[in-house]
Order: sequence, then structure tokens, then C-alpha cells
Amino acid sequence: MSMGKRLAAEFLGTFWLVLGGCGSAVLAAKFGGDGNPLGIGFHGVALAFGLTVLTGAYAFGHVSGAHFNPAVSLGLWAGGRFAGKDLVPYVVAQVLGGILAAFILLQIAQGQAGFAIDGSQAGAFASNGYGTLSPGGYGVAAAFLCEVVMTAMFLVVIMGATHGKAPAGFAPIAIGLALTLIHLISIPVTNTSVNPARSTAVALFAGPGAIGQLWLFWVAPLLGALIGGLAYKWVGSDAR
Amino acid sequence: MSMGKRLAAEFLGTFWLVLGGCGSAVLAAKFGGDGNPLGIGFHGVALAFGLTVLTGAYAFGHVSGAHFNPAVSLGLWAGGRFAGKDLVPYVVAQVLGGILAAFILLQIAQGQAGFAIDGSQAGAFASNGYGTLSPGGYGVAAAFLCEVVMTAMFLVVIMGATHGKAPAGFAPIAIGLALTLIHLISIPVTNTSVNPARSTAVALFAGPGAIGQLWLFWVAPLLGALIGGLAYKWVGSDAR
Amino acid sequence: MSMGKRLAAEFLGTFWLVLGGCGSAVLAAKFGGDGNPLGIGFHGVALAFGLTVLTGAYAFGHVSGAHFNPAVSLGLWAGGRFAGKDLVPYVVAQVLGGILAAFILLQIAQGQAGFAIDGSQAGAFASNGYGTLSPGGYGVAAAFLCEVVMTAMFLVVIMGATHGKAPAGFAPIAIGLALTLIHLISIPVTNTSVNPARSTAVALFAGPGAIGQLWLFWVAPLLGALIGGLAYKWVGSDAR
Amino acid sequence: MSMGKRLAAEFLGTFWLVLGGCGSAVLAAKFGGDGNPLGIGFHGVALAFGLTVLTGAYAFGHVSGAHFNPAVSLGLWAGGRFAGKDLVPYVVAQVLGGILAAFILLQIAQGQAGFAIDGSQAGAFASNGYGTLSPGGYGVAAAFLCEVVMTAMFLVVIMGATHGKAPAGFAPIAIGLALTLIHLISIPVTNTSVNPARSTAVALFAGPGAIGQLWLFWVAPLLGALIGGLAYKWVGSDAR
Repeated sequence: MSMGKRLAAEFLGTFWLVLGGCGSAVLAAKFGGDGNPLGIGFHGVALAFGLTVLTGAYAFGHVSGAHFNPAVSLGLWAGGRFAGKDLVPYVVAQVLGGILAAFILLQIAQGQAGFAIDGSQAGAFASNGYGTLSPGGYGVAAAFLCEVVMTAMFLVVIMGATHGKAPAGFAPIAIGLALTLIHLISIPVTNTSVNPARSTAVALFAGPGAIGQLWLFWVAPLLGALIGGLAYKWVGSDAR
Repeated sequence: MSMGKRLAAEFLGTFWLVLGGCGSAVLAAKFGGDGNPLGIGFHGVALAFGLTVLTGAYAFGHVSGAHFNPAVSLGLWAGGRFAGKDLVPYVVAQVLGGILAAFILLQIAQGQAGFAIDGSQAGAFASNGYGTLSPGGYGVAAAFLCEVVMTAMFLVVIMGATHGKAPAGFAPIAIGLALTLIHLISIPVTNTSVNPARSTAVALFAGPGAIGQLWLFWVAPLLGALIGGLAYKWVGSDAR
Repeated sequence: MSMGKRLAAEFLGTFWLVLGGCGSAVLAAKFGGDGNPLGIGFHGVALAFGLTVLTGAYAFGHVSGAHFNPAVSLGLWAGGRFAGKDLVPYVVAQVLGGILAAFILLQIAQGQAGFAIDGSQAGAFASNGYGTLSPGGYGVAAAFLCEVVMTAMFLVVIMGATHGKAPAGFAPIAIGLALTLIHLISIPVTNTSVNPARSTAVALFAGPGAIGQLWLFWVAPLLGALIGGLAYKWVGSDAR
Repeated sequence: MSMGKRLAAEFLGTFWLVLGGCGSAVLAAKFGGDGNPLGIGFHGVALAFGLTVLTGAYAFGHVSGAHFNPAVSLGLWAGGRFAGKDLVPYVVAQVLGGILAAFILLQIAQGQAGFAIDGSQAGAFASNGYGTLSPGGYGVAAAFLCEVVMTAMFLVVIMGATHGKAPAGFAPIAIGLALTLIHLISIPVTNTSVNPARSTAVALFAGPGAIGQLWLFWVAPLLGALIGGLAYKWVGSDAR
């Protein structure tokens, strides 16, 4: 594929990830107010994030590899599966796709009377955070550890499910549902990032609190991705 | 396959989509009243809509292509995957199948004492709407934008997952779960259409309010489908 | 395979269907009492029923065809996919497997202090019912219609997903999730049967009310299965 | 594969199972307090446990076979699918991986002010239990029976889905979702083990109550696994 089409695929796929994952959180998670089970809750948001990747990977896997996430691109490079020269353009396309999604989501959300983003609240506009901006009030150390471990295991699943000896065709299911799993575990801790593009996209609209904490959602996922990519590279190295 | 059997498949598949998706919304979403978590909520309705397509596509994909949706047929035509001469008969079969499902659903729903359709309520008989008929009170512009974007991305996933280089056999999973994802995001906005046949079928029984807003649930999904079909046609064009 | 092993597979598979589906309903649906969202609700029960078939079909599909349901066996016979001479032994094995599951489930459920089956309550011990024994109070005509239509569409999905032109290997996913879908729609109406063996198994322990209504959960599913089997036989007939 | 890499895969896979399954239970199940539907509930925990195995099996199945569970290793040995000489190293790797996960989970959980493990409560730190330590107050006999039957059927699904005549590549889906199903049924009874490594890992941090009941979560799953492995060995024996 031409690089232009690969980047278009990464742009659209990350657009879909942010629109679907953050969109379900902003529009549907607490429908009817806290305590109303009509809303989809953390469970539904977890499913939505995973399904953006599952569906996007079947749509775009054969075009761009379907990373949709700077940490994934970095981890696959560390694991020997992705060319370093493509890293920067991929990341730029991912971040831009995410930002467009956040912008479109904002236009839709503002169609409801009374909608407002209160950046002092944890999870405002689906932003990630720690301390007072963590949904469950988790501190910075727990948030950092959680993002590192979750991203590391995400990369382990990605590396493993796309390994030459893994069953062909199933990787989007494994990878998408791994992202669902990660959200089922960790939304209370950081609202779950494991993806700097996703965090950046909504932070731009969520106010200075989210932007001030954005560093963690670049550093921890990227560190975790390096660990996961290198770990699997060793474990799976003679499996082919 | 003969055209008669293809149309029968579209009729039955759209029947299943409306019976299952709208049926779960009408019969089970709010079981026990608002606030009772026994009911399946928006999460369950989202899953039901997606599973109608997942199951219907495995059952009928090899017969008719399993569109079950006028917007999908139009978008696949725009994307170069469907013959224009088959468009009108497909759409007629889809709308008729949907209407029969809504009629059968009404017969079942009326088996509960006190059942009544109050067309002034958002989501009455699973109808789609905006403004006062939007579940979350979203205005017409947000509703239009939401339906356009969701249908466009639905077509992107459909075009991508059925591409010659995508893994064979998995498309019904990707496409069905894309519809689940779309509902997880957008039920609060419009009660989620992305499918004019589904909207028309229940509007006929939901009263003048839903019928008066039906134009949006033809125009926006069809427009979105054209955008999505054309967009993927370019992105995936040299992937084969 | 020898008939003995095929029947053992049907026995074990129906055992799993009743233990898992009815077990989740009896043990987990309303955990903590009505209104407590820790319990899995109708959504969770719907998922459990579907997963019994999805998992059982991967385990036993290559042994017995994985019917686990007299209506499925009859419908497949009507659709030309199952030998009539095997119908009676299959049904006997299914009913016996279901009864053993209900017996084991009772032993587990009774391990909770205060457990009792109140057969005058709708859904007692996961039994099926109509009228006062319907979870949502649906009358006999609606219940009959619902069971016929749901079973007919179940057979359509089964026939279609196991058709020679459908993608190989995916049928257990399509069929299992079709059963989940059917439960998402229709638990409020009849507590969802579409399976006479499942209904019979728990009715034996649920008291005279459930037994007195058991006729409907044989007649309607069997009738629906005949309709679905014959309908798909025509629709899919020249697809091979 | 070298034994070192196989054991690393079992270590990491069981780490993921405990971190994800028990992590979702500890961090997210009751988010916002009892009665708040934002939390993922038993349904979400059931999904999380299953997805750890589904994703781990796609990542590591081709390395170690993806047991992640001493009962699975024993049952597969009984079923003739696993070499007895590898049993002890596998079990050691599984238990150690689980313990590391519980330790990491504790570090994350302690990042929330006020977090404490009250070992006198059922399900403390996701521990398994019976009697006063059963979530629903189920006695020891019901707990034992439940763990035996659930593990037996787990092994039946594992043996069947990995059988030479079962469709290739789908086993992780069947096996992972079987674990989800088992949790949907039995969390109220024992908080669901079917896995001695998972039980041991969290019991070490949950206090003397959980440790005192740990015997059951070794004996019952191992017994069930033997039964399931031997049962399927007979049922599927001439299917190849």
C-alpha cells in the first residue's frame, strides 16, 4: 500500500477509536443520571472501546496494520514488527484522527441542552487522569503502574495474536477484546488510556487539568509498550 | 442465486433485524420499570441489534450479501460492490421485511395488559427521533451529524471487512459488532437508526411524531453511506 | 461416530445448556435482590444461554451435530439435514441431560439458606410460562406467537450458518449468539424456551403451574422449528 | 519451544488471568458503591475472566498450549493431551504468575485512599470461599459440587474445542467464553475458582479465612478436571 493510504487508514481507525470509545463514555455511560441502569456504564464503555479496534482492525488491518495508537506502533517497533522510519508519520496520523473525532463528538454532545464540560471532574469529556481526576481517586503512582502494566500486556497480546504461528484471521478479535478487558479492569483507576492519541484528543477539549496530566498518558503507555514488545519478542522468538 | 431468493433473504434478514433489535428495546430494555437492573438497558439493546446482523449475515450472506438496510445497499453501490439495478428491489424487500417485523412485534407486545404506544415519548415503540423525540433531547443538527457519521463509519467497516484482503469469514462478526458499537454510542442521541428500513418500520406504528421525523432517518443514513462507501473505495483501492 | 457417543454428546450438551442457562438465572440473575446491579440480570442470563451453545457446539459439533434441543433436531429433519430415524433417541438424550442438570442445579441452589422454589411466581427455578407465570405478564397468545417466531428464526440461523456455502467453523458463534439474541428479546414474555428439553427439565422441579403450561413449550417451539427449517430449505436451496 | 519459554508463557498467561479477572473484581465490580450500575458487576467480572483466557490463548497457545490453570493441566493429562512430566513445572509457573499478579494488583488497589482488605467479608480481594465467605452464603457441599461440575465441564469444552476434528483456530474463543459462562453461573456460590492458581494467588493477600478454605479450591477443581478430561476422552475418542 502507498504510505498515503496507510496513513489515511491510521487516521480513520483512530478517529473511530476515539469517536466510539470516548463517544460512548460521554453520551451513553451515565444516561438518565447516576444510578440509572439504562446507561451503559463502565461495562458498555469497555465493550465500545474494544469494538472500535475489533471492527477497525478487520476494516484496515490489511491496509496499515491497524495500530490506531502510538504506543502500539512503538511497541511493535520494539518487537521487531514495524519499521522505525514509519513511526513518526503513523503517530501524527493517529493523533490527528483522534483530535478530529473529539471535535465531532463535541459537536454532537453540544446538541443536548445543558451540556457542559467541567474539567474539574474526573473523566470530564472522557479524559484520563490521576489523583482528583481519577474516577476512583487513585494516586499518580498507582495510575502510572496501572498504565504501564496494562499497555505491556496489550502489546503482549498484539504480538502474540499476530505471530506467524497464531491462527490466522483471529487477531482483531483477540486484540479488540484485550482492549475491552483492559477497560473492564482499569477505568476506575485512570479512566483507561493505554493510548496517548486517545488521551491527547479529548484532553484538548477537557480543560487545563487534563492537559496538565497528559504527560503520564504518553510516558506510561509508551514505557509499557516497550516492555511488552520486548518481552514477547523473547518469549515467542523460536515459535515460528 | 435467483433474485427471488436473494430478495427473500433480504426480507427475512431485515425482519430479524427489526424484530430482534426493536423487539429487545420494546420488550426488555426497561423491564421492571426505570431503574430496575433486570432490564437489559441500552447495552442489551445495542448487543441485540448487532447480533441480528451477525447471525443474519452468517445465515444469508451467501444468498443475498446480507445488507438488511437501504443505506448499506446504497453505500455498497457507491463503493462499487453492488449493482445499481438491484438497488430498488433490495430496498423494497428490506422495508417490507421490517414492516412485517414491527407488526408481529406489536402483536406480541399487546399481549401485556396495559401496553400502549405513546407517540409523544422519545423512543416510543423503538422509534427514532430528534428534539423532543430524542432519548436524550438532542437537537436536529446533532442528530443529523450523528446519523451521518455513524452510517459512514458503518460502511467503512463493511467495505473493509468484506475486502478481498481481509480475513475470510469474519465479516459478519465485524459488521454485526460494528452495529452494536454504533448503538452503544448513539442510542441517547437518536435512538440510533443508521437504517431507514428499521426507522420506517416502527414509525408506521409509533404515531405522527415519528413519521414526521422520518425524513432525517432516510436522508442522513443514505448520505453517510455514500460518504463511507466512497471513502473506503479510495482507501482500500490498491490493497487487493 | 457411534450412536452411543453421539447420544452422550447430546446428553452432555443439553446438560450444559440447562445447567448454564437456567443456572445463571437461578443463582445469579437477581443476586443481592431486585434492584441490585451486581446481579447479572436478563442480559447476563441471555449471554449465558448463548454461551452454553457456543461452547457446547465447539466441543460436540463434530460428534453429534450439537442440537441440544428437540426443536432443533425436528427443524433440521424438516430442512433435510437430519435423519428421521435418529430423532427419537436424540430427543430422549436431550431431555434426560436437561433433567440431570436441573437436579444438580437444585442441589447447588439448596446450599443457600432460605432457598425455596415458589411455583406460583413467574420464572420460578427458571421455568417458562405465560399469563401469571410470564415474567412480564404476557398472555397465552402472545407467548405462543413469540415462541413460534423465535424458534423459526433460530432454525433459519442454524440452517444458514451450517450451509455448505457459509464460512466454515463459524456456525457455533452464529448459533450460540442467536440464542443470546432470542433471550435478549423474549425473556420478559415467556422466560424464553425455544427448547422443549430445557422447559421440561426445570418444570419438573418448579411445581404444577409450570408443568401445566409445559404443552406450549413443546408445541410452539416444534411448530416454529418446522416453519424455520422448511423456510430456509427453500431460500437456501440453490446456494450450494 | 524450549521449556523455558513455555513456562514463561504459562507464567505470563496466568499473571494476565489473575490481574484481569481478579483485578476487574477488586477495582471495578462495585464502583461507586453497591447499587451503582456504573460498576461492572458480576457480569463484567465474568466477561473479564473469560477475556483473559481468550486473549492469552491467542497470544500463547502456540507457545505453551495456554493452560494458565493447574486443573486444566491435570485434566489435559488425564485426557491424554499433556505429558505428565511437564505437570509440576507448569503448575509452579502458573502459581507464581498468579501471585505476582495479585501483588501488582494490590499495589494498584492501594493507590485509592481508604482501600483495605477485610478478610472476614466474602470475596475479599477477589478470594474464593464457602459458607460465610461465599458471596451468596452457600455451604461447603454446594460449593464443592459446584466447583467440581464447573471444572469438569470446562475441561469437556477445552478437550472438545481443541479436538482434531473441531474447527481450527476457534478454541480460544470457545474456552475463554466457557470461563465467562462459568462465572456468570457461579460467582454467587464460591466467587468462582475452577483454578487453584487463581485462588491461591489472591488468598495469600486476603487473610487467614481465605487461606483456611483454600483446600477446597485445589481439591474440587482438580477432581472436576479429572472427571471432565476422562469423560471427553471417551466421548470424542473415535471422532478423529
